[in-house]
Amino acid sequence: MATVDRWLLPDGIEEILPPEAARIEAARRQVLDLFQSWGYELVVTPHIEYLESLLTGASQDLDLRTFKVVDPLSGRQMGFRADITPQVARIDAHSLGRKGPTRLCYAGSVLHAKPRALATSRSPIQLGAELYGDASTSSDVEIVSLMLAMLELWQVPGVHMDLGHVGIYRGLARAAGLPGDTEQQLFDALQRKAIDEVTELTAHLPADLAGMLRALVNLCGGREVLGEARQVLARAPSPVLAALDELLDIAERLSVRFPGLPLYFDLGELRGYHYHTGMVFAAFVPGSGGSIAQGGRYDDIGADFGRARPATGFSTDLRSLVTWGSALVELPCGGIWAPDSTDAALWQVVRQLRAEGLRVVQALPGQPAAAARQADCDRQLILQAGQWQVAAL
Amino acid sequence: MATVDRWLLPDGIEEILPPEAARIEAARRQVLDLFQSWGYELVVTPHIEYLESLLTGASQDLDLRTFKVVDPLSGRQMGFRADITPQVARIDAHSLGRKGPTRLCYAGSVLHAKPRALATSRSPIQLGAELYGDASTSSDVEIVSLMLAMLELWQVPGVHMDLGHVGIYRGLARAAGLPGDTEQQLFDALQRKAIDEVTELTAHLPADLAGMLRALVNLCGGREVLGEARQVLARAPSPVLAALDELLDIAERLSVRFPGLPLYFDLGELRGYHYHTGMVFAAFVPGSGGSIAQGGRYDDIGADFGRARPATGFSTDLRSLVTWGSALVELPCGGIWAPDSTDAALWQVVRQLRAEGLRVVQALPGQPAAAARQADCDRQLILQAGQWQVAAL
Repeated sequence: MATVDRWLLPDGIEEILPPEAARIEAARRQVLDLFQSWGYELVVTPHIEYLESLLTGASQDLDLRTFKVVDPLSGRQMGFRADITPQVARIDAHSLGRKGPTRLCYAGSVLHAKPRALATSRSPIQLGAELYGDASTSSDVEIVSLMLAMLELWQVPGVHMDLGHVGIYRGLARAAGLPGDTEQQLFDALQRKAIDEVTELTAHLPADLAGMLRALVNLCGGREVLGEARQVLARAPSPVLAALDELLDIAERLSVRFPGLPLYFDLGELRGYHYHTGMVFAAFVPGSGGSIAQGGRYDDIGADFGRARPATGFSTDLRSLVTWGSALVELPCGGIWAPDSTDAALWQVVRQLRAEGLRVVQALPGQPAAAARQADCDRQLILQAGQWQVAAL
Repeated sequence: MATVDRWLLPDGIEEILPPEAARIEAARRQVLDLFQSWGYELVVTPHIEYLESLLTGASQDLDLRTFKVVDPLSGRQMGFRADITPQVARIDAHSLGRKGPTRLCYAGSVLHAKPRALATSRSPIQLGAELYGDASTSSDVEIVSLMLAMLELWQVPGVHMDLGHVGIYRGLARAAGLPGDTEQQLFDALQRKAIDEVTELTAHLPADLAGMLRALVNLCGGREVLGEARQVLARAPSPVLAALDELLDIAERLSVRFPGLPLYFDLGELRGYHYHTGMVFAAFVPGSGGSIAQGGRYDDIGADFGRARPATGFSTDLRSLVTWGSALVELPCGGIWAPDSTDAALWQVVRQLRAEGLRVVQALPGQPAAAARQADCDRQLILQAGQWQVAAL
């Protein structure tokens, strides 16, 4: 590698420079404070863990996205976190082991060996909240409400939401008794809304089940979809009907809380299927390719850590939030320029001003007068009648 | 891996649970705000980079501590950052490319494939400040002062400081014209203060140079060491004398600023030799095995990124700071317990209270009354005469 390109960063790996880094930091603090005001407690998860812990309950997709190394101490395979949610589930299930509902939140970067899509970051800053120990739709409504409150706080304009429920497809697939690989193929085809493939893969099933599975492709749109689904899925197994009831309940309660929010439904939406078990949701804004925040219910994940707990949560990429949000961040600005001097009295004055919360930048030898403005200072310390005084620049 | 130990974390890899995570977060914010008030701008460096960028100017020791993976996109070797300073130097040299002094700071976790010492964390949270573009001792004094201000802010008791200067050993070794591997052996021996080995390795050198190199082993202690060094090194090459002058100047200016601070000198101290080029320093507290904050001057590192710049800086591990500091962190406490209700009016009241900065935790179905206290609430929302009111719990 020549000197000239030592500064190259790998594709999809970013650094954040001033003043963008200050905006990101401000957003991080505001969102974590919001989570705190809803009762969510911060946890910090490790960047690296044994691979088996990290990929518990996760999809093959997450496995492929995870960087792997061998631990020189234990000889065991480790992975760099590509997702924080399974780590927080481990903390709830094992490290905390509390009874009753537990609210946790986190913020930290994750690494993806392969990007989710072309020109997508491989090092997003994942920020999220998780609610454990309650299986009711109240938890789902709280988690979606918190996500929407976060988007409101950052004044993200034009938010609309997609809601789905993994239990609908899962209930139908289970009733159809599809073998694992066919189920996976059908899942992929549904995700792509590839109706021909769905038709082919369900060809040998009983007519009513095949009809319902095929109908999922088109069960997407506004509120009317839930009514249609009631009719189309009228003879579905009871877990499917229960999932539909949950979705309706959540949608109604969200409409009360956020009356102006456009809600869309997609009953073939199975994002994160191998991890989510119930309601799934995502927030979109016009012009953004993918969702800017997303989540869902994933009740079974804690079992791998010795304690199955109901769980629901969401996450966002902090940089997307700052990019799409229009909230004005008040970055600290201005400051006092102190001269290059070893005077002990000057040090005491500078110390005092900083203790009062003021920003003071001290000149270094030979800096020109223009350096004060470049350092974003609007005042200066000058010696008047033997006293250091703050004066205009 | 059995279900029962899926929750195991690798040795030296930690997670941070509530309420410790909130304390760490508070410390992070306070220290970054301190850096900001001194004119240091935040940068966020990537967790992973091409290995050649990451290890630029670094010691073999850092190489051994760095986890390595192959980038599936480029096929090139990448490393997980084991140190943030070289990344910030790259940002100063290349990404920012500013003229004149540039002050940068950062906070983020690093990963060590092998711990520095037994029972040491392999995932410290590194926090630091770097000053580029000024070669004068004023920069060194500023950086050490900022480190001490950070330790004061966190009320770390009993701080004492070690000062050294890599230029002293380097100047003597250069004058002696030692071949690379002998120089490395001598370096190692000096670090361990292994006087016999130092004597042997310098046996063939001219008597005056050998004497001066051997003297370094014992040139450690209080202020008197600088006087002794003046005598012992009187006939040393001029870069050695210049280094000694710098050290004296820095020590005198620090004594003016921090009159009560115990200062020790160790002229054989070469910590981070292959990266530092000038003054080196470390802060210690009674009972801590290693230093709790440390740094020094490393003028040459930017050259590998196309722009050589003077540089000086320090770093600390956030967790050590919180462990050894006695500052009381005011964690937000208390809160308002809201009942489990879908009432739209309740939602509006809760929303309003949270917007005012209050913490409101909403009950989930079936939670007992005791849950309010467990959620750290001291007040509750009750319906009185058709209005939701905050009342005592």
